[in-house]
Amino acid sequence: MALIVQKYGGTSVANPERIRNVASRVAKYRAQGDRIVVVVSAMSGVTDNLIKLAKEIMPLPSEREMDMLLATGEQTAIALTAIALHALGVDAVSLTGAQAGIVTDGVHTKAKIQNITPKQVHALLDAGKVVIVAGFQGQTPEGQITTLGRGGSDLTAIALAAALRADLCQIYTDVDGVYTADPRIVPGARKLNEISYDEMLELASLGAKVMQSRSVEFAKKFGVVFEVRSSLNDNPGTIVKEETQSMEGVVIRGVSLDKNQAKVTLVSVPDKPGVAARIFKALGDAAINVDMIVQNVSHGSGSPATDLSFTVDKPDLLKAAKVIEGLRNDVGCREVISDEKIGKLSIVGVGMRSHSGVAAKMFDTLAKEGINIGMISTSEIKISVVIDLAKGEQAMRAVHAAFLDK
Amino acid sequence: MALIVQKYGGTSVANPERIRNVASRVAKYRAQGDRIVVVVSAMSGVTDNLIKLAKEIMPLPSEREMDMLLATGEQTAIALTAIALHALGVDAVSLTGAQAGIVTDGVHTKAKIQNITPKQVHALLDAGKVVIVAGFQGQTPEGQITTLGRGGSDLTAIALAAALRADLCQIYTDVDGVYTADPRIVPGARKLNEISYDEMLELASLGAKVMQSRSVEFAKKFGVVFEVRSSLNDNPGTIVKEETQSMEGVVIRGVSLDKNQAKVTLVSVPDKPGVAARIFKALGDAAINVDMIVQNVSHGSGSPATDLSFTVDKPDLLKAAKVIEGLRNDVGCREVISDEKIGKLSIVGVGMRSHSGVAAKMFDTLAKEGINIGMISTSEIKISVVIDLAKGEQAMRAVHAAFLDK
Repeated sequence: MALIVQKYGGTSVANPERIRNVASRVAKYRAQGDRIVVVVSAMSGVTDNLIKLAKEIMPLPSEREMDMLLATGEQTAIALTAIALHALGVDAVSLTGAQAGIVTDGVHTKAKIQNITPKQVHALLDAGKVVIVAGFQGQTPEGQITTLGRGGSDLTAIALAAALRADLCQIYTDVDGVYTADPRIVPGARKLNEISYDEMLELASLGAKVMQSRSVEFAKKFGVVFEVRSSLNDNPGTIVKEETQSMEGVVIRGVSLDKNQAKVTLVSVPDKPGVAARIFKALGDAAINVDMIVQNVSHGSGSPATDLSFTVDKPDLLKAAKVIEGLRNDVGCREVISDEKIGKLSIVGVGMRSHSGVAAKMFDTLAKEGINIGMISTSEIKISVVIDLAKGEQAMRAVHAAFLDK
Repeated sequence: MALIVQKYGGTSVANPERIRNVASRVAKYRAQGDRIVVVVSAMSGVTDNLIKLAKEIMPLPSEREMDMLLATGEQTAIALTAIALHALGVDAVSLTGAQAGIVTDGVHTKAKIQNITPKQVHALLDAGKVVIVAGFQGQTPEGQITTLGRGGSDLTAIALAAALRADLCQIYTDVDGVYTADPRIVPGARKLNEISYDEMLELASLGAKVMQSRSVEFAKKFGVVFEVRSSLNDNPGTIVKEETQSMEGVVIRGVSLDKNQAKVTLVSVPDKPGVAARIFKALGDAAINVDMIVQNVSHGSGSPATDLSFTVDKPDLLKAAKVIEGLRNDVGCREVISDEKIGKLSIVGVGMRSHSGVAAKMFDTLAKEGINIGMISTSEIKISVVIDLAKGEQAMRAVHAAFLDK
């Protein structure tokens, strides 16, 4: 008799029909004798509507009141899910985040889970009930309602799985699992049976947005093995877990393409101490998230100068360009070039650590396709290159073929 | 510096525009230096939508889960109201029923308030904030979310006013106050400046549905003086309070007409012990609420028989007729007659106690209008008669003219 935590997102509970589908799935597991905790998000659209309503009243509503407001979305969904289980004759009971013992800090709209005291959940499970917990929310030690921010329901599920020492944590979503590449772009993309936390983290941060990084980080920290799988079918999904020996045999786990980045290049920046610091402090002060940074070796002899490039999220490009313009005289660069037409292509795999020549093979593959590499950035288990956006999908297919096609 | 509890119903917070209006009114009182607790209902329509959603999933959803579901309606409204006050620069904070310390029993969907520990409310008021409390909801000592049933938000306001020892409790609604009669029917109807709890209770139960009886009963029990007034203008409303000497000078406080009753008559029922008991026990078992009961004196000599009439809410008539048909042979009455076309006309006033001839004057007034009286029932402060529905409004105007026109 396993203890399973299942998490269903907003699209899985979007209407009464889909809520009934979720209930059927839960009932099937229940019939096998498993003990089940279900975490649900707000019905899709509900949260956006509430935000719209609040902003009609005040453009920048208080975060404390936004938490009070948004927490109702999940509370509605858990009650309806419990009712759908009752309709199938399954004993079920819903709990708000607070009732489930999820205690957070007081940073409204992006609270962090401090601890979970699942006394109530245990008691209800012991009484033979399916327990439905509101995702995305918690309560401060003082009793204030908080929400966990983006990806919060995944986090609730993984944190509950950790606190309950669950045998299994299933994250139900609208895809079958984690793929070697986006199947809409790469026809040969395969679903992965397993992936390590670190690989998942790199893929999450690289635009393969199955889950938010923070949930994966949390799972890694507390060693929660979880499965990403589809709520639309019964196919097994992808198991996300600690790296194993066998994983290292696979050099590359996946290929991802991020089309949402833009590049800024400062041409001929004086190569002297403090210049880069000044630039990236100004960007940080403007709350602009910088991803890749590449600085070439210095050229010229009298007064050495260098080219400095970085990438930002496309929506931040204008703001970033403005910040750099403001610094231009101060810093003394010759020219600032912005480029929105870039793609960031990455390959990820823990096996990379023990296999040499991976980067060379990637660059060679791109060269054969006639694709020029603009920037390169590497980590222990990842190589990213910036290329022409128009050639992004072609590059992705080529690299997938070189490393992953069977 | 007065402490005021204000309650706003669902139509007063139906949309962002109206929520802003509520906030303006609260801000005005706040600017006078008053300490304010605001109780709000769910935005009108929201509760019905949630019920519809639940019933789509299961026709008879669990009451515990309905409470979890419906409590979100008020929670949404308090957050938006707090945001609207912030938009006006007023420091405000919202609290769920649980957070406000409203403790109820565990009878879901119609819980009774057991006690209120408004520690949190006091602390926030002391910190200079307007406190917005979700109406209609509370929490059991075990932390289960409950709702108070119909009229629950009025009850929240009055109970909070009692617990906080508020100087004033204002119930904002869409009418200007309590009238001597329905102004749509009686052109000469006047708004009352004050009314006693008992008169208000009789009027509430007689179809002048400004407030549910249970809130008035609660106010009476705890001596909470409250004002019923309009959220659409600044007119003073009607003060509801304990009966005073001066109130007794007014013989009749108001006239009401209940069009929602139906009459059942059992013709020639054997006049022997236990018959009436059997009939009304059967109706009670079928959860049918009987209002007036009239039994005439026995007639005939050999085997004495009597006519027995009673009234029920119109929607219960069919069910009541069925119950009586089932008893007919057993009880042995000659005939059962149902009549939907009746109206119950009532006059209410504490002054009645010390004034004789009130009933005579009422009957005389109706006789002059050629209106026949079908049933009569009286209490200490009320006289009700059943008349032909078609003549109900004519009768109401005539009685109002006789007792109340100036």
